[in-house]
Amino acid sequence: MQYRKSKNAFLIRLMKGEEIISSLTKFLTAQKISSAYFSGIGAVQKATLGFYNLKKKKYIWRKFSECEVVSLIGNVSLLNGKPFIHAHLVISDNKYSCYGGHLKDAVIGATLEIVLKKLSGKAERKFDREIGLNLLDL
Amino acid sequence: MQYRKSKNAFLIRLMKGEEIISSLTKFLTAQKISSAYFSGIGAVQKATLGFYNLKKKKYIWRKFSECEVVSLIGNVSLLNGKPFIHAHLVISDNKYSCYGGHLKDAVIGATLEIVLKKLSGKAERKFDREIGLNLLDL
Amino acid sequence: MQYRKSKNAFLIRLMKGEEIISSLTKFLTAQKISSAYFSGIGAVQKATLGFYNLKKKKYIWRKFSECEVVSLIGNVSLLNGKPFIHAHLVISDNKYSCYGGHLKDAVIGATLEIVLKKLSGKAERKFDREIGLNLLDL
Repeated sequence: MQYRKSKNAFLIRLMKGEEIISSLTKFLTAQKISSAYFSGIGAVQKATLGFYNLKKKKYIWRKFSECEVVSLIGNVSLLNGKPFIHAHLVISDNKYSCYGGHLKDAVIGATLEIVLKKLSGKAERKFDREIGLNLLDL
Repeated sequence: MQYRKSKNAFLIRLMKGEEIISSLTKFLTAQKISSAYFSGIGAVQKATLGFYNLKKKKYIWRKFSECEVVSLIGNVSLLNGKPFIHAHLVISDNKYSCYGGHLKDAVIGATLEIVLKKLSGKAERKFDREIGLNLLDL
Repeated sequence: MQYRKSKNAFLIRLMKGEEIISSLTKFLTAQKISSAYFSGIGAVQKATLGFYNLKKKKYIWRKFSECEVVSLIGNVSLLNGKPFIHAHLVISDNKYSCYGGHLKDAVIGATLEIVLKKLSGKAERKFDREIGLNLLDL
């Protein structure tokens, strides 16, 4: 990972082979960032996307490979006192068709370019029994 | 709706069952926000998306249900002196396929997490006869 | 193109018939913007999208017409001292199906509404031999 700080924004480049969630979480911990939002574009070698079945309260996962990242949108909050990333990904394959879902993990292809903006204060998540997910508790 | 203000940004959570456009418009009116932009992720129980036929100058609508919101991008301006939301939505179904279009309305599923940033000054829309839509008049 | 400056952000409207990359590049040059990020929504009459084949180190292009722009995400950096746009586009057709990829060029349909935020300092790109692309060098 390479990055450049610009006031409250970070321009971040993830390198080929890096995994998004673990790399970003490490970065957030080191920078002590507890509330932020980000967007990005690039490409992935592999990605695991989730569709949440609200009735069954569980994710169904599917793996994809060799795709452009046409949209990465996410936010950062605290879960049990640690930075937690919630992100949704849209990828496109070699037919330009788009697939999307909740981002579980993804390994970078050519590059991933992210702009992350810090938000002041803290935002926390708590487990919501009705929904079955850790949701923002604002 | 829950929200937390952070300087000129708002972190917003829409709750299960809330309708996006009406809830956000109510919020914008209460906060006296006349110019802003936002992005978000989450899920919808229902959504109505539009494709604009430029030759016929009319939208064609289609309803979708039970999808992830993989990308919500929009802006806020004034139309006839009132906050007006223009947003496009990308949703993904349980096959991870993406569908997109102009957001008419949508009812939240598990959650919807939005970051909205105020812009200083005013941005207004006016009806454009050639296009047939209320467009930004900057 | 019309635009309105709001501190470090620009609200930009591209008009029917304008080409995105050339119009934005001209704007960035005139405004002396060397580092920024942006997002947008609207519609295109035509767009050329690329899928990068990392093994062959080349883009495969495909042309699309008459689509909504459901997500435009990009950034601005310097390449050889000049503003360079890297953007990925997601479009949806009259069946609401989404197509995405690296944005080569696109001609605006009804409108394109962009919010562009300047980043302080400089971000530069350099050619990366392993990847075969001009990547951020932070």
